[in-house]
Amino acid sequence: MARAERPPAADAELLVAQEQGAFAEDARRAVYEVIRTRRDVRHFAPGREVPDDLLRRVLEAAHHAPSVGFSQPWDFVLVRDVEQRRRIRDSFLACRAREAERFPPERRAKYLSLRLEGIVDASLNVCVAVDLRPTGEAILGTTAQPEALRFSACCAVQNLWLAARAEGIGVGWVSIVEPTVLRTELALPDGVEPIAYLCVGHPIAFRSQPMLEEVGWLPRRPLDDAIHDDGRWRR
Amino acid sequence: MARAERPPAADAELLVAQEQGAFAEDARRAVYEVIRTRRDVRHFAPGREVPDDLLRRVLEAAHHAPSVGFSQPWDFVLVRDVEQRRRIRDSFLACRAREAERFPPERRAKYLSLRLEGIVDASLNVCVAVDLRPTGEAILGTTAQPEALRFSACCAVQNLWLAARAEGIGVGWVSIVEPTVLRTELALPDGVEPIAYLCVGHPIAFRSQPMLEEVGWLPRRPLDDAIHDDGRWRR
Repeated sequence: MARAERPPAADAELLVAQEQGAFAEDARRAVYEVIRTRRDVRHFAPGREVPDDLLRRVLEAAHHAPSVGFSQPWDFVLVRDVEQRRRIRDSFLACRAREAERFPPERRAKYLSLRLEGIVDASLNVCVAVDLRPTGEAILGTTAQPEALRFSACCAVQNLWLAARAEGIGVGWVSIVEPTVLRTELALPDGVEPIAYLCVGHPIAFRSQPMLEEVGWLPRRPLDDAIHDDGRWRR
Repeated sequence: MARAERPPAADAELLVAQEQGAFAEDARRAVYEVIRTRRDVRHFAPGREVPDDLLRRVLEAAHHAPSVGFSQPWDFVLVRDVEQRRRIRDSFLACRAREAERFPPERRAKYLSLRLEGIVDASLNVCVAVDLRPTGEAILGTTAQPEALRFSACCAVQNLWLAARAEGIGVGWVSIVEPTVLRTELALPDGVEPIAYLCVGHPIAFRSQPMLEEVGWLPRRPLDDAIHDDGRWRR
């Protein structure tokens, strides 16, 4: 294993930095626990609202995600109206019917038996969007990798999801929905794209495993299979 | 505010689900703390390795990210060799020079004064890649939104980042690098794309604010500016 070379001398910027280091054992355990027990929730308890202060904390967590060039390119559209949600759910149903055709008959039946969204029965929906419209000047870090803006919004989704889990609130990400329907329904301007359509509410339960693992749709991949040491793709 | 309608009757799947609910106050605080104090780190302490067991925990956290259709489409290429990292840093330098041209002179000088990566002096680099190659069957949830695979890998990045922060380990995401250079250097097969090139190691410090905020590059956006209530884009 090669040694890292010496870094440049500390610069003036660092003088205002704050040393904090590793979290205490209990706090560290809580971080791993929230990561391990977060679930994609599709079954929500009826008639329970998410309190405004709780929702605010969760959105604040999303807003503290990393972003390329400190662009903070995310926006959160809150969808509460049930009629609007029904229309969005209609798009889910159409997309699901189309996707079902891609599976052979036995898998198709299983696919169609799975509950894949809680759009209408969640307390509310949150669409995390990314604003790709030109700004006054270039965004630092996006010249070689313009996708970094979308990726920043995804980090915000994950922060939101983890904070919600810690609060006992379930989140489900619905990707089986037409982006064009979301754009129209949410009146997104040109250049603003939906990244994640989330159902948010009180879960009936947090499963001990991801649903698709539990019902045998796909197995969990061994971690070792995903690690390529020595700086090169292994297989 | 509209009321959510009743959910469908609980199904058999739910019988094995586990009720867990909200975290205790201390654990909840730890989750918000890790989200609030995570930083993009570019200054690393010299000559300190990240212990293997710690690195493993952090990669395990990444591997527990949500993924569309439980596809777990991420891979982690660990880059330790300093010569290889120098070549990747050369790409950073070229991209930075190119990006600098996009700023007017005063901002350009400021841009060039910023430390934007710790590729060589971090303990190691981790490239989070996404495997987009066709699998045996369709991936549930990707028909209407194929981008969901890349977005899953981004959620893995955020998990990795938060777990590292709790461990006192710094992570910096370098988007100022050519994806084609990464593909070649890391021998990624066709259909596997680099999503995030991360510098990982012992930070000199965790700043109290993001560096780009601290040095006045850009301000933090008010959260209220990012929230659109009533199901429609506000401005």
